[in-house]
Amino acid sequence: MAAREGLRPGGRSARVQESVHHAVSTLLAEIPREELTVPQVAARAGVTPSTIYRRWGDLPTLLADVALQRFHPDNGPAATGALRSDLETWAQGYQEEMSSAPGRAMTRDVLASNDSRSPACQCAAITRSQIQMILDRAIEQGETPPDANTILDHVVAPLIYRLLFDDAPIDPAFARTRVTMLLDGTR
Amino acid sequence: MAAREGLRPGGRSARVQESVHHAVSTLLAEIPREELTVPQVAARAGVTPSTIYRRWGDLPTLLADVALQRFHPDNGPAATGALRSDLETWAQGYQEEMSSAPGRAMTRDVLASNDSRSPACQCAAITRSQIQMILDRAIEQGETPPDANTILDHVVAPLIYRLLFDDAPIDPAFARTRVTMLLDGTR
Repeated sequence: MAAREGLRPGGRSARVQESVHHAVSTLLAEIPREELTVPQVAARAGVTPSTIYRRWGDLPTLLADVALQRFHPDNGPAATGALRSDLETWAQGYQEEMSSAPGRAMTRDVLASNDSRSPACQCAAITRSQIQMILDRAIEQGETPPDANTILDHVVAPLIYRLLFDDAPIDPAFARTRVTMLLDGTR
Repeated sequence: MAAREGLRPGGRSARVQESVHHAVSTLLAEIPREELTVPQVAARAGVTPSTIYRRWGDLPTLLADVALQRFHPDNGPAATGALRSDLETWAQGYQEEMSSAPGRAMTRDVLASNDSRSPACQCAAITRSQIQMILDRAIEQGETPPDANTILDHVVAPLIYRLLFDDAPIDPAFARTRVTMLLDGTR
């Protein structure tokens, strides 16, 4: 995700990316993110600061790149045999992930980036593709699911809005309940 | 909004706030926000940088404070005589404001702040209170409106999610249409 076009995987460029990402992750476990600097990351990664500036432009863009890579799911959503339980299971996991400290930091980092490739939109595209996998599976199984935008509007957006703009605690079953309400046609 | 507790309105503290806010606004009209620095703001406002650091802590917090002050509506939502048209009119205006360049910058600034008083939550509280005014008026007029959370979940959250996480163009009537769908009980 971080690699610019034309970079050979496994080459020097990939090694630099891996060591810089690793340096960010380990440093963030040691110091507050407000104190993190590019020279620190460079020193830990064994590269020069200018290597980082050349490749990522600035620190927010680097942090967003690391966040985005972490957010990439290893697997597709669990297949439980039915649309309702697939979506409920996914929504529950999504809420847990986005509400966690790393999830909140990830959201903050992708929103703060100045990268023109918009990590925030890339992040939302990953969410959308996970949802689409569930919907495609449901169609194959003869179900008639709502479309991905409807799931985003009814389940994802209200959760993310609360996480970003509301400091009240969120019901741990909030996203799952939104799925249930959507499928039942209730408010 | 910016003033800490115990500051006398009209005193030196209020004058400092006004001149610093004014300096931020005029500088942002001249240079990209990525280039703005505390010493620049201080010079323009005729105060020392340490005055700004002491009062606001850092630049993101100052920017969020200015953004929040601008977001404060001068009036309550327009009274059109009925819940539906009140909410539709408000939703249309809200979308226009939040989609504009100053609105997007405001959202970005309140989300980037490190201020423990959470300008993002203060900003959402202003939105909520505008909605609540419409709902209270409807109840007085004998209508039975949905609650403010329902409006936030169905109208505000999907709009803000798209503005933050989607670079596709948004239908200019999106928020208004969401109000109509909510009141009609359609998806």
